[in-house]
Amino acid sequence: MVQPEAEELIAQIIAGDTTALSRAITLIESNNPNHFAKANTVINGCLPHANSSIRIGITGVPGVGKSSFIEVFGKHLTHQGKKVAVLTIDPSSAVSHGSILGDKTRMEKLSKDPNAYVRPSASGETLGGVARKTRETITLCEAAGFDTIIIETVGVGQSEIAVHSMVDFFLLLQITGAGDELQGIKRGIIEMADAIVITKSDGDNIPKTTLTKTELSRALHYFPPKKSGWIPTVTTCSSKTQEGIPEVEKIILNYVETTKNNGYFNRKRAEQNDYWLTETINDQLKQDFFNHPQIQNVLKETKKAVQNNETSPFAAAQLLLETYKNLRT
Amino acid sequence: MVQPEAEELIAQIIAGDTTALSRAITLIESNNPNHFAKANTVINGCLPHANSSIRIGITGVPGVGKSSFIEVFGKHLTHQGKKVAVLTIDPSSAVSHGSILGDKTRMEKLSKDPNAYVRPSASGETLGGVARKTRETITLCEAAGFDTIIIETVGVGQSEIAVHSMVDFFLLLQITGAGDELQGIKRGIIEMADAIVITKSDGDNIPKTTLTKTELSRALHYFPPKKSGWIPTVTTCSSKTQEGIPEVEKIILNYVETTKNNGYFNRKRAEQNDYWLTETINDQLKQDFFNHPQIQNVLKETKKAVQNNETSPFAAAQLLLETYKNLRT
Repeated sequence: MVQPEAEELIAQIIAGDTTALSRAITLIESNNPNHFAKANTVINGCLPHANSSIRIGITGVPGVGKSSFIEVFGKHLTHQGKKVAVLTIDPSSAVSHGSILGDKTRMEKLSKDPNAYVRPSASGETLGGVARKTRETITLCEAAGFDTIIIETVGVGQSEIAVHSMVDFFLLLQITGAGDELQGIKRGIIEMADAIVITKSDGDNIPKTTLTKTELSRALHYFPPKKSGWIPTVTTCSSKTQEGIPEVEKIILNYVETTKNNGYFNRKRAEQNDYWLTETINDQLKQDFFNHPQIQNVLKETKKAVQNNETSPFAAAQLLLETYKNLRT
Repeated sequence: MVQPEAEELIAQIIAGDTTALSRAITLIESNNPNHFAKANTVINGCLPHANSSIRIGITGVPGVGKSSFIEVFGKHLTHQGKKVAVLTIDPSSAVSHGSILGDKTRMEKLSKDPNAYVRPSASGETLGGVARKTRETITLCEAAGFDTIIIETVGVGQSEIAVHSMVDFFLLLQITGAGDELQGIKRGIIEMADAIVITKSDGDNIPKTTLTKTELSRALHYFPPKKSGWIPTVTTCSSKTQEGIPEVEKIILNYVETTKNNGYFNRKRAEQNDYWLTETINDQLKQDFFNHPQIQNVLKETKKAVQNNETSPFAAAQLLLETYKNLRT
């Protein structure tokens, strides 16, 4: 099959063609160097048509009911005529190869909804790689007319920071437990959350989720105020009864209004652009250094010398940098 | 005055001569490139005699009574024949030039104690610069026979991370307040603490500090377990009555015993060496890139293009890295 040219792909994406969108995302995900230039052309062509969506990050530990929530929440939005794209950042898929999150059948109804687009994480990638590709995929989805972008991740590590740095609003899903509601969740993730939504608030579980809501609201009180001027909200919902789902949308719209009015919304997006520019450069500089075969040889010896207290880490670093400089000139 | 040679300095430091120690620290602090080689020789000569102390980081917001605590705690240690060095990391001194922490007269008794050595932070430095110099100063102090190294910092930012990455034990001083005890303190700092000591626990204040102790202990319960296997302790003390001061020492000794037994103590020191080696290299690579005059010119234009959605942060980064490569070959 002849692949469409970059210009053709751009035109199709802007026209809302999801087949072209999927093709372009595959192009972005490709590690074949011959595809890089075309991928960049497509992204740059889509950029002027992007940036008008709301980007929502959603996290929570396995078992919290992320896919059920996203399915019900996504359907709630598409019923109103909104167009929802669901992307995932799941670096664990690089290890397991069978992605936990990348299973379309998890969100069966949403996947079949003409107003929704569900795309799993690129697999076999480092977090840095997945993050870059996801961020570029956001641009393409926005150009294709999706006005709500949901980025899903698992609540277990560095991936939250990556997601946080590419979304406008960060939502933490939480289940009710045995008292220690914050146990097992990294402080940093709580600190990033603009809202905490307690799931499975139905039937006999309602008194417990209501109590958790009170406890979490109290715990959030200990956290410093946010740069956005936004006070994080705690709420409950049920994916089964759909109780509380419209409230989550209201919280997000309220956040967007507040931060657009105080200028934080656009400032944050500008900061995120700067962040990704700088991060990409820093990553590449490190990779070039530490992957250099001759540096790797010297580094091994040097680390041994440092551990044996024969030289200080700083003197060792100077020596390695000197070696690197001489290798390159 | 003729400056002693590196070998002479090393011999004097190892003999416990604090005048030689001060001279060597001044050498480390010097930004004169002619001093770098000699400084490295002195550090490397001291390394085999270092590493046998306990390194304690102490932080807390201004007003918590850090200097009073360190004075009383330090005297408690020197009374037992221990040798205590107090260093500070105060990047604010780079701005104010009058260092908040670097004032010897703050710890008058300890400064005059023959078993103590008080040395303020190098001034006019970036945090990275102060951190490197402090870490090298630790080596010299240890070689000079100081068995307890206290690194003091203000509880207001990045400097805690630097201190945490060079000490064995991290102590957070805290005052009792109006309910929200954790307000205003960054989560990350609490997470680093191996002990929280509530100061000014004397007279009418005792009921309040006792209550704070209970509340903080409960709050710590929400934090994930530490890699060290150590459960952070909350205690109270008074620098005025000296009540609770011996308990702080006991907590630290208990920590050292626990982590030496489970292997964490030495593992952490090895990790810290690796951290400083890698950090120094990464810092230098970034500095070389971002301080390059031609890169600075291109970067300005590129950032503008990214903010105007003419190019993506990733495409822009690739372009800058390409430019850098061509500049160097």
